[in-house]
Amino acid sequence: MAGESETSVSTESEAKRLVGTNDPYGGVIVHINEPMDPATFLSLITSSIAHWKLQGKKGVWIKLPLDRVNLVEAAVKEGFWYHHAEPDYLMLVYWIPQTPHTLPANATHRVGIGAFVINPNREVLVVQEKSGLLRGTGVWKFPTGVVDEGEDIGAAAVREVKEETGIDSEFVEILAFRQSHKSFFEKSDLFFVCMMQPLSFDIQKHDQEIEAAQWMAFEEYAAQPFVQKNELLNYINDICKAKIDGQYSGFSPVPTMSFSDQKMSYLYLNGKATERDSRG
Amino acid sequence: MAGESETSVSTESEAKRLVGTNDPYGGVIVHINEPMDPATFLSLITSSIAHWKLQGKKGVWIKLPLDRVNLVEAAVKEGFWYHHAEPDYLMLVYWIPQTPHTLPANATHRVGIGAFVINPNREVLVVQEKSGLLRGTGVWKFPTGVVDEGEDIGAAAVREVKEETGIDSEFVEILAFRQSHKSFFEKSDLFFVCMMQPLSFDIQKHDQEIEAAQWMAFEEYAAQPFVQKNELLNYINDICKAKIDGQYSGFSPVPTMSFSDQKMSYLYLNGKATERDSRG
Repeated sequence: MAGESETSVSTESEAKRLVGTNDPYGGVIVHINEPMDPATFLSLITSSIAHWKLQGKKGVWIKLPLDRVNLVEAAVKEGFWYHHAEPDYLMLVYWIPQTPHTLPANATHRVGIGAFVINPNREVLVVQEKSGLLRGTGVWKFPTGVVDEGEDIGAAAVREVKEETGIDSEFVEILAFRQSHKSFFEKSDLFFVCMMQPLSFDIQKHDQEIEAAQWMAFEEYAAQPFVQKNELLNYINDICKAKIDGQYSGFSPVPTMSFSDQKMSYLYLNGKATERDSRG
Repeated sequence: MAGESETSVSTESEAKRLVGTNDPYGGVIVHINEPMDPATFLSLITSSIAHWKLQGKKGVWIKLPLDRVNLVEAAVKEGFWYHHAEPDYLMLVYWIPQTPHTLPANATHRVGIGAFVINPNREVLVVQEKSGLLRGTGVWKFPTGVVDEGEDIGAAAVREVKEETGIDSEFVEILAFRQSHKSFFEKSDLFFVCMMQPLSFDIQKHDQEIEAAQWMAFEEYAAQPFVQKNELLNYINDICKAKIDGQYSGFSPVPTMSFSDQKMSYLYLNGKATERDSRG
């Protein structure tokens, strides 16, 4: 929403204030970078909010890096609360108007992928992991992983397949997805099963993460007792088998310009069912 | 992962320590509820970590409510960092082993819905919003909203349609979805277009949020210049039209037991393409 400001304190003669950049929703974003003592910070917050109130500003965002942790308490005492946090910073927020706030909600979902990579011999790429719930069980599974911040789902699947097995692949479509809740603390999880076309075939497994990797006949994978007993994996097997046999269509990605900000984003849709391919 | 502990400080004779509950990954979760001064907290952290280290524990989670903000600095000085935050608490984390941590990533995506509600007269339910980018433009749009923490996608669509228009509806399937990045700060966004079956028809609009709401002939909605000029909305229109004409299949929800923890979750798949309906 805004770049880093060079300095976060103004030095006007009348009153020292925090320097913020405006956001498109009538808000102000302040990045605190240089060291400061809490008393100075508190007085800057007070004078700045008075100033922004006169300007008709609404939301005030203060981004405090982890090493500015000494300022968190002062902000909260002045009426700020937590919006979100990442390992290296805490984002605090304040709402100036008397009306209920209209600030955006925090992120609620982690996004994961499972990669269904099938070669022309009807063999699926499977791994055994060195950690996690299936460690040491001998169960063969699809490569899986977590989508990084800012990463497209298909790109995450390509990356994870490469990292775990050394196989180059191309993302084809989403075969199915699952939403689950409380996957860690109160956060939810969206897991996308991605159909991948392999572009190389020689496996080079990731030694730290992966115990073993191989191409395995799809029927042999599907016949594993662990897979057979798992309702979710059974559904996914049926979908993958239907896909191999040309009897299933998932959602494929179409690049489009975004609704509000004219950035490119992927729309995932059932391309088999409409005639949109004829467009530019 | 764990319930609230009654008290967060043990009173054993040998040494006072924080009381944690174990998580299934070799970690400890501590909820700090009662007031405490930072010096006491620091000494409790130090003795507790020494104790957990001997026990072979790995991750240490400390959940500090907003009104325990006075303890944040002490935890960070002892080596904790931010994992995530919500308006009323900050989750701090620490990794005891010398190896790189294997803690779960934070949530990266906000999830939103757009509801395509079509009645038997081929009329679509549309609204004009009182806030947001389309305020005052006269543009008619689908009801939209953000999926709450822990809420199923389909349930969010039912809720938003009811809140904005008073219409009862039933979730049918996901027609398409879009992933976009940097929708607020560094976080991403997943937006699901939901096909809904209306169960009532008399509109009672939400006076605070909605300027106007009506049933509108689908062709009239689609012909709006704003819609025509927007590539993303054009794709969605084509999908909705194909759906009305019985020539499109999206992803419908199937309740399944989850892979790892035997909780119920929804798998979304192209139900038209496989024969899974015959199962229990």
